[in-house]
Amino acid sequence: MMSKNSIEEFAGGLSSAKPVPGGGGACAAAGAFAAALGMMVANLTVGKKRYADVEEEMKEILVRLGGLRDQLLELIDKDAEAFEPLSRAYGLPRETPEQREEKERVLEAALYEASMVPLEIMERILEAMGDLEILSKKGSRIVISDAGVGVLFAQAALDGASLNVFINTKLMKDRIKAQRIDKKAEDMIRQGQEYKDRIYSAVMSQIR
Amino acid sequence: MMSKNSIEEFAGGLSSAKPVPGGGGACAAAGAFAAALGMMVANLTVGKKRYADVEEEMKEILVRLGGLRDQLLELIDKDAEAFEPLSRAYGLPRETPEQREEKERVLEAALYEASMVPLEIMERILEAMGDLEILSKKGSRIVISDAGVGVLFAQAALDGASLNVFINTKLMKDRIKAQRIDKKAEDMIRQGQEYKDRIYSAVMSQIR
Repeated sequence: MMSKNSIEEFAGGLSSAKPVPGGGGACAAAGAFAAALGMMVANLTVGKKRYADVEEEMKEILVRLGGLRDQLLELIDKDAEAFEPLSRAYGLPRETPEQREEKERVLEAALYEASMVPLEIMERILEAMGDLEILSKKGSRIVISDAGVGVLFAQAALDGASLNVFINTKLMKDRIKAQRIDKKAEDMIRQGQEYKDRIYSAVMSQIR
Repeated sequence: MMSKNSIEEFAGGLSSAKPVPGGGGACAAAGAFAAALGMMVANLTVGKKRYADVEEEMKEILVRLGGLRDQLLELIDKDAEAFEPLSRAYGLPRETPEQREEKERVLEAALYEASMVPLEIMERILEAMGDLEILSKKGSRIVISDAGVGVLFAQAALDGASLNVFINTKLMKDRIKAQRIDKKAEDMIRQGQEYKDRIYSAVMSQIR
């Protein structure tokens, strides 16, 4: 698994001319960090007398964010795996009409699959944002800045993943299908912006 | 060095109740990823006939961004190191007037040092954004989405680091000094927003 690589190796991999890890995998990693920062806030809220009334809610959040964090770490690999068939499809010959038809068919399917992974990254991040919002209101105030960093990472990773949806759907021949996928991504970008505005202003009002 | 930890371990460390790595270290890591994504764009632009006229500029960017990436990876540790004296200062006794005076003095110095590291993280990220802007205009268009993800990460890490400036300066007794530091952070937030708006719209105009 790529998440077994060190931070330094991962940054080295991103820097290189090699296609993976790329922007999609980086978004999955940043999304995992966002979920993890939320968990830090929850972990520093549980067991505190002052926050006893949200103890159970914090424990539930820890389970949910832990699951999302681990799924996002796995999505680093899924993103890399989806790139291979796409790369193979681009390399197919297109000399005869049959070859051109076959290439178009294979490419269309690969583009669809390659847009599904960043869409899944977006879905997981949006779920994590729901918990970050609860944390920004009910979590321990001494680590509120970490909830703030978490939501900034979540939004950047969400919007970043959408770019990886759009670069793939842009090339799809089935425009109805492409637009349906784009619509999903756009809806999530909008929801993410709303989450970020709410959470960040809640955090800032406690910091400044 | 903390950057030798795997992505998974780093996410695990963020999730825990332990104070480091925290939001500051996560911002340094995300800033390093931003610089790295810029390097990927540059690495896929050099050696291409179509981009021969920017070959030298790309090579210079690679050297600069490589340096910034590595400095940001080191700042993950610096952020953790600055937390220790702060944590010690909070633990000092304050029973006698002498102890209270001593605690205030030590705490003030530790708060100052702890605000300097995220400020340095912000400075390095802002420098990287300058190169990301060049890349968004002159870099290979086939990896333009990675420049877009890079600037999203850079802005999130820049703003996130500013939260770690503000939580420390807020507690400083020397308000003149605190406001001078806050002003620097606010200026960088504004510059970062301007970079992000310009770069992201340049990227989006090529993707959608």
